[in-house]
Amino acid sequence: MLKLLKKSPLAPKKFPNLPKISGIKLFSIHSGIRKNNKSDAILILMPGGANVACVLTKSNTPSAPVIWCKKIKNYGKAKALVVNSGNANAHTGMHGLQTVRDTVDTIVNKISCNRKEVYVCSTGIIGEKLDSKILIRAIPKLLQKQESSWDAIAESICTTDTFSKGAKSYFNFNGKRYKVVGIAKGSGMIFPNMGTMLGFIFTDFPLNSKLLNIMLKDSVENSFNSITVDGDTSTSDTCILFSVSKNKFAKSILNITDSRLLKLRKALDNVLKDLAKQIVCDGEGAKKLITVNVNSAKSYKSAKNIAFSVANSSLVKTAIAGEDPNWGRIVMAVGKSNIYIKQNSLSIFICGKQITKKGCIIKNYDEKFVAKEMKKQNITLDINLGLGKSKATVWTCDLTHDYIKINADYRS
Amino acid sequence: MLKLLKKSPLAPKKFPNLPKISGIKLFSIHSGIRKNNKSDAILILMPGGANVACVLTKSNTPSAPVIWCKKIKNYGKAKALVVNSGNANAHTGMHGLQTVRDTVDTIVNKISCNRKEVYVCSTGIIGEKLDSKILIRAIPKLLQKQESSWDAIAESICTTDTFSKGAKSYFNFNGKRYKVVGIAKGSGMIFPNMGTMLGFIFTDFPLNSKLLNIMLKDSVENSFNSITVDGDTSTSDTCILFSVSKNKFAKSILNITDSRLLKLRKALDNVLKDLAKQIVCDGEGAKKLITVNVNSAKSYKSAKNIAFSVANSSLVKTAIAGEDPNWGRIVMAVGKSNIYIKQNSLSIFICGKQITKKGCIIKNYDEKFVAKEMKKQNITLDINLGLGKSKATVWTCDLTHDYIKINADYRS
Repeated sequence: MLKLLKKSPLAPKKFPNLPKISGIKLFSIHSGIRKNNKSDAILILMPGGANVACVLTKSNTPSAPVIWCKKIKNYGKAKALVVNSGNANAHTGMHGLQTVRDTVDTIVNKISCNRKEVYVCSTGIIGEKLDSKILIRAIPKLLQKQESSWDAIAESICTTDTFSKGAKSYFNFNGKRYKVVGIAKGSGMIFPNMGTMLGFIFTDFPLNSKLLNIMLKDSVENSFNSITVDGDTSTSDTCILFSVSKNKFAKSILNITDSRLLKLRKALDNVLKDLAKQIVCDGEGAKKLITVNVNSAKSYKSAKNIAFSVANSSLVKTAIAGEDPNWGRIVMAVGKSNIYIKQNSLSIFICGKQITKKGCIIKNYDEKFVAKEMKKQNITLDINLGLGKSKATVWTCDLTHDYIKINADYRS
Repeated sequence: MLKLLKKSPLAPKKFPNLPKISGIKLFSIHSGIRKNNKSDAILILMPGGANVACVLTKSNTPSAPVIWCKKIKNYGKAKALVVNSGNANAHTGMHGLQTVRDTVDTIVNKISCNRKEVYVCSTGIIGEKLDSKILIRAIPKLLQKQESSWDAIAESICTTDTFSKGAKSYFNFNGKRYKVVGIAKGSGMIFPNMGTMLGFIFTDFPLNSKLLNIMLKDSVENSFNSITVDGDTSTSDTCILFSVSKNKFAKSILNITDSRLLKLRKALDNVLKDLAKQIVCDGEGAKKLITVNVNSAKSYKSAKNIAFSVANSSLVKTAIAGEDPNWGRIVMAVGKSNIYIKQNSLSIFICGKQITKKGCIIKNYDEKFVAKEMKKQNITLDINLGLGKSKATVWTCDLTHDYIKINADYRS
């Protein structure tokens, strides 16, 4: 975590108390990639194997680990996950790919598994070569260490994050209690496509990788793919969902419409949305969490497009940082998206207070009241298009001096 | 102009000496829209008439004046242009449209012309009603005033601009000297689609409005539509080109491929590009002018898309503000555009120095040298895709503390 900066004012009070999941072993170490003595490499072992689903960045300049994960993800099984922070191993050419291969081979030699069962992720500076020796040396040491806590693991994968991120959800099914546990990292370079961060989710609910993939994709759409900090999409975004259960149901779940998936879906949505919002709350320089709801749209896609047009607008985000109910900038941002709207059926609400109606300001608009509401940490913008029945929600943070400080004043 | 801020360090030394053009009369006044005593309304009369071309914002929440200009532009003739600063008359519903109609009617009564010959533009705060009485009162006063200079006119249309913007170009043709003169305003809410600003261009070269429109559109594409300050598209963007010449050629120019247009095209391009770059140099908080060249692309469109992906990246713009050769952010921004590239044929140059080649950093990369080059005011990024023969250039500015100061710290 970036020591230069204070913890985000939007951070949760403490890291949640995450439960152990049988079949998952956590290890962390300071491998030497980062200059301070901070833990910067983790190994998560699933000796009994896991079914796995994976959503990766759509960047056209993906990192070497993303290229690797893309290659193995259809295999659908996993036994190990290695993650380092401090270096993204991105745009490092053949050297970067070799580092991933060396890492995978070292794991395979140690725990005897298929190469396609080893997931690798890196996060940190783009473009610097990552010396494979560091990870090759670290892996045997990781395996000799005592098991780590979720908290330690979550902290190890942080970069410019000011707090570590975790979430959980439980549900009961057929007399058994199931767990969904997730950790994530992300603070800058956050704009979906997919989630622009690292997120690792674990459950002991048994499910095959095909259905896990569908569940994960759906859940990512409304969580990691519904957030933005700066509109910049990372080269390294990776979200992986592992199901480690050995207990299979008497009758396996083979169809995504199976009602037995409802509770898992809800638990997954909770964990992913919680983590996604934590990432926004740790957005570089963030002082306010902004929820943009676009309602009464013709389609979910058009609603989301407009919501992101607002959530990515520097002028909207600076106005909110300044606690200024400058709704004209919201009108601008709605208008600049390429989605057709009817200007005279557009209504805008800030913090629940209606400001415009039928294409112009309402009578007796009380700006002072709205300005007072904007002093709060949670700002909600409601944009009603008056065109249809679809809606979408997107989360972002304000754009402050600290964003500039983090990204311009300190040389990275 | 925003008095809170110092003149941009990228401003030209002085406003250019722009020549009078026969058939054009300039007037300016303080009408009372702005609170200080600054001139805030202008009237440009072309008593002999002008052929006219017009490019307008593609925003789906256009201002009332933009809606008016859209309506009349096919008529192709003009006798008057009225512009006010301080209020954009945008998202003001029926009231806003009535204000435009009242303004037009007042002009028509005073100078007796067709309503479709009166162009109206407004720039300033979005959403506040613009009282038509102010303009109705101002128009007769404007007509009684002494003629203004280009300098005074250009200053009157400024809002958050820190300097007024003008440009000129001359060319000789058939023994006669022709002029192209332009003024513009713009500083924030700058991202084409079209030009995200106001620009008014005048020439005494005779040409019909159909050909003027083609010439203007082409010229805007490589100037006002090739700049960005904050990725935010205004509700009011308008660029109008007037040809006031009474002298027609013995044989009229009727085809866009007519070689007699070559010199006009060059002069137009010069003036528009000059004004566009001045707008970027006056970008809110700008300390550096950034030129992004994308070369060896498959098409102009794909090159421009990637150039804008880089030019709109907050992380690239803050890195340049910090004089940090953080080329990894350029890789990220190239990758996040939805244009296919080959990562291993990508080369990146900062200030003329090659940094990456074939998808990774070059040998013996001297970061200190590049960091030193980045202390200059003009920063050039060259991105070679190695895919084809097309290229595009886009201009932007860095993202600094002053951008936040202007847009968050002062209530607008």
